[in-house]
Amino acid sequence: MSDTQNLRVILASRPVGRPKPSDFRIEQAPVPTPGDGQVLLEVLYLSLDPYMRWRISAAKSYAPPIDIGDVIVGGTVARVKTSRHPEWREGDIVLSDAGWQQYALSDGTGLRRLDPAIAPPSTALGVLGMPGMTAYAGLLNIGQPKPGETVVVAAASGAVGSVVGQIARLKGARAVGIAGGPEKCAFVKNELGFDAVVDHQAPDFAQKLAEACPDGIDVYFENVSGHVWDAVVPLLNDFARVPVCGLIANYNDGPATSSGPDRLPATMREILAKSITLRGFIVYEFMEAQQDAFLREAGQWIKEGKLRWREDVVDGLEQAPDAFIGLLEGRNFGKLVVRLAK
Amino acid sequence: MSDTQNLRVILASRPVGRPKPSDFRIEQAPVPTPGDGQVLLEVLYLSLDPYMRWRISAAKSYAPPIDIGDVIVGGTVARVKTSRHPEWREGDIVLSDAGWQQYALSDGTGLRRLDPAIAPPSTALGVLGMPGMTAYAGLLNIGQPKPGETVVVAAASGAVGSVVGQIARLKGARAVGIAGGPEKCAFVKNELGFDAVVDHQAPDFAQKLAEACPDGIDVYFENVSGHVWDAVVPLLNDFARVPVCGLIANYNDGPATSSGPDRLPATMREILAKSITLRGFIVYEFMEAQQDAFLREAGQWIKEGKLRWREDVVDGLEQAPDAFIGLLEGRNFGKLVVRLAK
Repeated sequence: MSDTQNLRVILASRPVGRPKPSDFRIEQAPVPTPGDGQVLLEVLYLSLDPYMRWRISAAKSYAPPIDIGDVIVGGTVARVKTSRHPEWREGDIVLSDAGWQQYALSDGTGLRRLDPAIAPPSTALGVLGMPGMTAYAGLLNIGQPKPGETVVVAAASGAVGSVVGQIARLKGARAVGIAGGPEKCAFVKNELGFDAVVDHQAPDFAQKLAEACPDGIDVYFENVSGHVWDAVVPLLNDFARVPVCGLIANYNDGPATSSGPDRLPATMREILAKSITLRGFIVYEFMEAQQDAFLREAGQWIKEGKLRWREDVVDGLEQAPDAFIGLLEGRNFGKLVVRLAK
Repeated sequence: MSDTQNLRVILASRPVGRPKPSDFRIEQAPVPTPGDGQVLLEVLYLSLDPYMRWRISAAKSYAPPIDIGDVIVGGTVARVKTSRHPEWREGDIVLSDAGWQQYALSDGTGLRRLDPAIAPPSTALGVLGMPGMTAYAGLLNIGQPKPGETVVVAAASGAVGSVVGQIARLKGARAVGIAGGPEKCAFVKNELGFDAVVDHQAPDFAQKLAEACPDGIDVYFENVSGHVWDAVVPLLNDFARVPVCGLIANYNDGPATSSGPDRLPATMREILAKSITLRGFIVYEFMEAQQDAFLREAGQWIKEGKLRWREDVVDGLEQAPDAFIGLLEGRNFGKLVVRLAK
């Protein structure tokens, strides 16, 4: 990487099913020059998140799909390299949306200054960022766990799931995690302090989940779908709440891959028979009203050692496509970030 | 029917799929004699409702299934024939749960005295009863329609749907009904005053529904499921609310009949992408807190001619099994009641 070339990752083609490396194109472009009122950002960390699978598909979503030939969107931690903006100084570390590239211009909109004294800047992409806020807002607004209730979350070692379970416990609920493989399960139980953890790769997963939830499930934080959902539904209690935050197991599915049997009637029947609430949400709904409270509360928990996190750091923007493909398959372990520069 | 014999309908076998006449047994038993503190009720009207399909199945539900050999449960309007209870007099007309039989004993628990001057007593089984309260509570608590929003309800000529649409309009929303066949559709539009109605038997039903909802759907009151759901889901707006009150299209399905394609992933995806709320409910959740308000408000609307209803009256308890089978197929037209005596 040079100082005069801007390495970036372009959407080359819309993935059909599982994204392939050839759906991404890595290219060089000139480093842009900031005009009056602009800053030049040098990206330090790029966040990789499951929602990006939606943004590179043509499907209608909460945001328009990105076009073929565009730089792929993404949250970043960046350093202000050059500033022609009165509010920003060279060397400022900022949360930004520079996307999958080394350099980007900004007029300051949406930038947030980060204080490395509070926590490592990359946490602004994870536990103190969008994933953490997603966990906080979805769990508290929709899940509404009461002390003593059982909260189940899948992808429990991941960026969102790890925070869901820890906040559930901080609010007095019992946290049961679901994760893939013994290493992730051990982390969830021993490092994150969940009350129980179940390996969804185990052949007797559904039975093990039932054993881990002797009083049923009051809150299921849905971020995977697939066969985990089938094991969860029979365990849901009357008046259970299900924040629907993500469906990573389905993200690579096209409409044609949904073969039978039809699981919708059974799900609807459980929703009716048990007065269950399913509520989809995108974190932006709660951002304006609750982000300050989240940063204050989560910052305090981190200071007190009550909220832990794990990062899966990949070095080099060239690795981003492969790392992203792995994320959709659960290959990462912790919040996945790409480190572009130190 | 004689005064010394109690005609009653017994569950002979648990229906598999569509109930058959042989699943029911009509028999005579002696008329019971009230003891101290009891009354003998003579049933005038028996309510037939879709929820009964659940109660005669073995499936776990909000109430235990009734046993083979038991009288089938059901709401009734009855006359107190003999009273040995200080609070009830011979001739009182009461809302009761005598079930599918001519006579029953009661110790007064759950009885409610009806005043025929307010409305015909059979309305206590419909517009002023459990179906009306179901519509009121589900629409206002979960649907929460705002003025100008679009509320869609299926089975719009039925006991619940007819009230949902009329209350939606009374609260300032736009009501779009779905019904089966031209006669029911004309009734929904012309008699009940819905803003629009769509025939779900039409080959271009989904397109017609889209045309009837040019601003999308904000509230879908779910009481049928099946192919109606598939047409509704793409039209749901961001933050739409879906009270799940019934699934009559699925009630006869056993678990084995749910062949593919699997419609669950697409539904979950819409829930997530549009921040949709699905909330199952059983009316009893809201009964204690809101029944008085419902009776007061609905009574006032009826007095002012703003809330209309239609009954489908079948004469003779012997007809109850056939009428109930027809209810599950949409053969009734309006609130289905069996008249046992005048």
